[in-house]
Amino acid sequence: MEKTNAARRLSFASDYMEGCHPRILQRLAETNMEQSPGYGLDGHSEAARRLIREACQAPDAEIFFLAGGTQANAVTLGALLRPWQCVLAAGSGHISVHEAGAIEAGGHKVAALPHRDGRLAAQDVRRAFRDWQEDANRDHMPMPGLVYLSQPTECGTLYSLAELEALGEVCREAGMLLYVDGARLAYALGCPANDASLADIASIADAFYIGGTKCGALFGEAVVFPRPGTAPRFFTQVKRAGALLAKGRIAGIQFQALFEDGLYARLGRQAVAAANRIRDALCARGFRLAYPSPTNQIFVELSAEERAGLERIADIAFWEKSGEGRAVMRIATSWATRREDVDELLALL
Amino acid sequence: MEKTNAARRLSFASDYMEGCHPRILQRLAETNMEQSPGYGLDGHSEAARRLIREACQAPDAEIFFLAGGTQANAVTLGALLRPWQCVLAAGSGHISVHEAGAIEAGGHKVAALPHRDGRLAAQDVRRAFRDWQEDANRDHMPMPGLVYLSQPTECGTLYSLAELEALGEVCREAGMLLYVDGARLAYALGCPANDASLADIASIADAFYIGGTKCGALFGEAVVFPRPGTAPRFFTQVKRAGALLAKGRIAGIQFQALFEDGLYARLGRQAVAAANRIRDALCARGFRLAYPSPTNQIFVELSAEERAGLERIADIAFWEKSGEGRAVMRIATSWATRREDVDELLALL
Amino acid sequence: MEKTNAARRLSFASDYMEGCHPRILQRLAETNMEQSPGYGLDGHSEAARRLIREACQAPDAEIFFLAGGTQANAVTLGALLRPWQCVLAAGSGHISVHEAGAIEAGGHKVAALPHRDGRLAAQDVRRAFRDWQEDANRDHMPMPGLVYLSQPTECGTLYSLAELEALGEVCREAGMLLYVDGARLAYALGCPANDASLADIASIADAFYIGGTKCGALFGEAVVFPRPGTAPRFFTQVKRAGALLAKGRIAGIQFQALFEDGLYARLGRQAVAAANRIRDALCARGFRLAYPSPTNQIFVELSAEERAGLERIADIAFWEKSGEGRAVMRIATSWATRREDVDELLALL
Amino acid sequence: MEKTNAARRLSFASDYMEGCHPRILQRLAETNMEQSPGYGLDGHSEAARRLIREACQAPDAEIFFLAGGTQANAVTLGALLRPWQCVLAAGSGHISVHEAGAIEAGGHKVAALPHRDGRLAAQDVRRAFRDWQEDANRDHMPMPGLVYLSQPTECGTLYSLAELEALGEVCREAGMLLYVDGARLAYALGCPANDASLADIASIADAFYIGGTKCGALFGEAVVFPRPGTAPRFFTQVKRAGALLAKGRIAGIQFQALFEDGLYARLGRQAVAAANRIRDALCARGFRLAYPSPTNQIFVELSAEERAGLERIADIAFWEKSGEGRAVMRIATSWATRREDVDELLALL
Repeated sequence: MEKTNAARRLSFASDYMEGCHPRILQRLAETNMEQSPGYGLDGHSEAARRLIREACQAPDAEIFFLAGGTQANAVTLGALLRPWQCVLAAGSGHISVHEAGAIEAGGHKVAALPHRDGRLAAQDVRRAFRDWQEDANRDHMPMPGLVYLSQPTECGTLYSLAELEALGEVCREAGMLLYVDGARLAYALGCPANDASLADIASIADAFYIGGTKCGALFGEAVVFPRPGTAPRFFTQVKRAGALLAKGRIAGIQFQALFEDGLYARLGRQAVAAANRIRDALCARGFRLAYPSPTNQIFVELSAEERAGLERIADIAFWEKSGEGRAVMRIATSWATRREDVDELLALL
Repeated sequence: MEKTNAARRLSFASDYMEGCHPRILQRLAETNMEQSPGYGLDGHSEAARRLIREACQAPDAEIFFLAGGTQANAVTLGALLRPWQCVLAAGSGHISVHEAGAIEAGGHKVAALPHRDGRLAAQDVRRAFRDWQEDANRDHMPMPGLVYLSQPTECGTLYSLAELEALGEVCREAGMLLYVDGARLAYALGCPANDASLADIASIADAFYIGGTKCGALFGEAVVFPRPGTAPRFFTQVKRAGALLAKGRIAGIQFQALFEDGLYARLGRQAVAAANRIRDALCARGFRLAYPSPTNQIFVELSAEERAGLERIADIAFWEKSGEGRAVMRIATSWATRREDVDELLALL
Repeated sequence: MEKTNAARRLSFASDYMEGCHPRILQRLAETNMEQSPGYGLDGHSEAARRLIREACQAPDAEIFFLAGGTQANAVTLGALLRPWQCVLAAGSGHISVHEAGAIEAGGHKVAALPHRDGRLAAQDVRRAFRDWQEDANRDHMPMPGLVYLSQPTECGTLYSLAELEALGEVCREAGMLLYVDGARLAYALGCPANDASLADIASIADAFYIGGTKCGALFGEAVVFPRPGTAPRFFTQVKRAGALLAKGRIAGIQFQALFEDGLYARLGRQAVAAANRIRDALCARGFRLAYPSPTNQIFVELSAEERAGLERIADIAFWEKSGEGRAVMRIATSWATRREDVDELLALL
Repeated sequence: MEKTNAARRLSFASDYMEGCHPRILQRLAETNMEQSPGYGLDGHSEAARRLIREACQAPDAEIFFLAGGTQANAVTLGALLRPWQCVLAAGSGHISVHEAGAIEAGGHKVAALPHRDGRLAAQDVRRAFRDWQEDANRDHMPMPGLVYLSQPTECGTLYSLAELEALGEVCREAGMLLYVDGARLAYALGCPANDASLADIASIADAFYIGGTKCGALFGEAVVFPRPGTAPRFFTQVKRAGALLAKGRIAGIQFQALFEDGLYARLGRQAVAAANRIRDALCARGFRLAYPSPTNQIFVELSAEERAGLERIADIAFWEKSGEGRAVMRIATSWATRREDVDELLALL
């Protein structure tokens, strides 16, 4: 979480500081006085679902629009896990660290696995499952039932398609489900280095969500179950969790706007391009990056002096201490980052 | 829940079929590229809180913006109840009937009390508490810990100030908390018959929410704890429930718009005035009203023929069967109801 | 819950005031220094399971020994219900009233149905399911997933085999499960009027428990799933609920003792015979019975004077007020009731 | 969990393989036909409470008898934690590993801390709390609310009085509660190296339980709140968790027997003395102990050959792999260990 000023100065503190892409505002205005049924049963939500199914090449996908990421994670995992199951996740995973125990509030342990720059490795997941399976006490332990990963990860890194396929393979073998937290999915899809498309994710994962809040929307995440029947009576479970939007169309309209002509991926590309300009400049000046992130987040290690200097001109976010008074600071671009702001930052660097 | 067509025809099916009051759209547009911190820590949310504190004459009130009514109920009651406590509510209460077991999902029983047209009576609440208190088995029973009521009720009726005070008195005596579900609070405040102001509610209730979703906003409910400290660490509990909005300002901006010059109450008055015109016309024509509702919802009993006739010209909502093929139908006005639509309906009647 | 004195005087206050049938104590003593694995994996537990499978004519039944009735109900229903489901139960049902909200603590609503002397009628269950099914808002409501009934009921009454079959039929049609709380099952099985055998119950119900605590054991209830696979990984769910007995054999030995030669049914018959002697005497003297109970519990209506007179000679339990200062008092016999105590009571009457 | 044969051969596989100390059986027999109220309101339970209060030098302590350790942990922590709080525990702690997610089932995260041979260090606890406190995102994270430790630990090691006091000090400073899992407390109290008495624990901890199941009882754990009011309405919470014993006296009688003349501590001393003989013999023969356990559990590292040799003569429990085909095996003594069995084992060694 970032603390920023709303001032005129440069801000790269976070990717959810502005409202939404102007097209969304325009569509909300155009449709404002339409009368439609609630709870996502309206035409805009249905249209958005069709567009997402196409983008995912998953014609039978079941899609629900929720308001935020922690909610999407908690409600979906709650629906996919049986009472005796736990989640396997990277120790750096959002559900492991920054969701105030939302998964545990639903009754499930989050078992933290080792990770490399936020990424789970298939062999670590396999080992964790086998450790459970071969433990004489396994009936006294939560059974691993689902693997949670984030694309991009919380460190801004990406899974390659091959890595995702390997994880999917481990899950299938073990009878576990695979879930992808796509809070910043646009910034993975928009990354030149990325080789895992939406259709790939839909083919590999049992459930995932396409993040809107951090990728151009006012709010909203599209939870996708590529194969129907994965989460029976999910609508009622969404309602029970207090997560059903009465005016569901407000979310539907936003995703319709984001997916009707590839806007979502385009916003991702722009943000990553902006981040790359900054990243290149930082590297050229010899700064060390804490994580090899190719996406919209840059984690740069700064001395106290360097940090103070940078913070005089721009808001950036403290990430973690790094020894000897140094700190890892996050510089984030987004769909809303202006070219001139990046220019200005580079000039100042 | 209503099923409606998005067509051009008259629709009085529900009060959440349109987007939002135009002023809100305008404010969202004006503020769209402002950069602000998330999670409700921004200036707009703070401004909205100040306005609501003023309107409630509760200068120390703690206020949180949540996305919807079931969520507001579940998160707030979850924070106010201790594990051994249950809720007392009218059998017709929204939490009793139409929230998919959200309160029970949080671990608490909802004990249904008798009601008159949706209203709890103080003596019934007192009796329910005493029954528990005097039961030799009380330690084997959930202890009544909170009284839930809706203003207006699910039947469109209102509590008078005296009734609310009597309920508050019973709660204080018994050590129970009092919570008011204000999903349609604008339509109570805007009702000529109403004598319980926002300040009254804030003075009597331990917690309540001011409904936005059904009263002019795209979404959003303002949960108010008039006396600080009532729900410790509520922010974290909101997060844990997946109910914390990353771009909290989107809710803040809406409530700022609704409360800065009394718009909220004005929208309520308009809707009730429109409802009254329809109600008067129905009564003049001899139709029976199922509940003596003075607010924006009209529950009229129709024969199958009458219903078919009315549904040819306007969308209205089926409420419940009423014997001999008759049905109670709901006609709802809202902040968005146009004068000419009411005129047309009256002409057709 | 009854309050009694441990004195020498007559006591008919409850059926769980003594320890256990002497045979159980003897078996515990004989086996005390045997060394066996824990958690119900020992030979005695296995032997008890074989005996119960035979008694139920359910050769594949899965059987688990839990410590008490509320626990058996909460763990089993928790395992059988999916998150979106609720339980249908009589308003008088033990889970509805006297389990401190244990089912709600597991996240499920208990919907109270009307009952006759504690008994659910098949048509009321069918109507409740249809009401849900035909409700336009059903996706916003908990889906009835399981019917809970008690045999005998909390009013001491019995379901006939035909009634149970009708309830089973309704459940099958609706896709609901049927669960029988057998806290006092011995006193149903031992009742001359009873025509539903253990094998009948095992054939009709999806799960039930055979009560030990109130029927001759120190503690313990045998949860039976007549058809294997009904509750996957139930062992782990028992552990997760804190309900797995480390020395599982202590429960196993007790049920082995109760079932090896029909002791369980015999204890039931004795208690009911004793109750019948008292019941006949009361009726002969013109006392009114509040419920037509043919089992070990007698609910007799007494004036204040009659009550005081009876309480001078015997402990009995207050049940409920009955108007004009009268009260319904419970007289309970059990496996431990001595013939001479009944004689003495009858003489005093 | 151990797998053993119930055969005549030597068994040191676990400390809960037998029934109970003969005195308990005798008391159960003597009191069997007494009639007493249920739910722990009887005279024996009250007498046991008095004895435990004396032993703890905690005259106002509130004491409840539960059936097992996982249950005691889950119900007590559930009562002590508020919804926004998590537990700090050693990664090796029973609640972290072997309770099937019971604490998470109650809605709380168990944060695993580093440990030395099962022991938490005060400075690690302090650091964990400070890390939370100083984290800019702390409101998005569960707040550490309680420290869980086991005495002796799951590795058989002990906290010294000074270590417990330091942990208590950290908790007080941070406003956290301290809870001690005493599943094998007799074997700590009976250990020559131990300097933390029951009274010390009662003075330092906010809650703890005195283990019966593994220390001479058929079942049962005494949950102690040294200072009254620590867990309001705990009785109802026990009931709600399905953990209230109807015949509470069965647990009360057992603790009365264990505490009336110091039997509990004596049983502990005998078991530790037996373990020490085995431990000394193993060390004399050059075997490596995996943990420096001074209590009734010995964790010895064996080659495959040594293990096979030992398992030909005695049941012992596999604990964990140890590289190069070696294994850590657990040898456990208990209140039930016979001198001649130890003699025989030593002779065979």
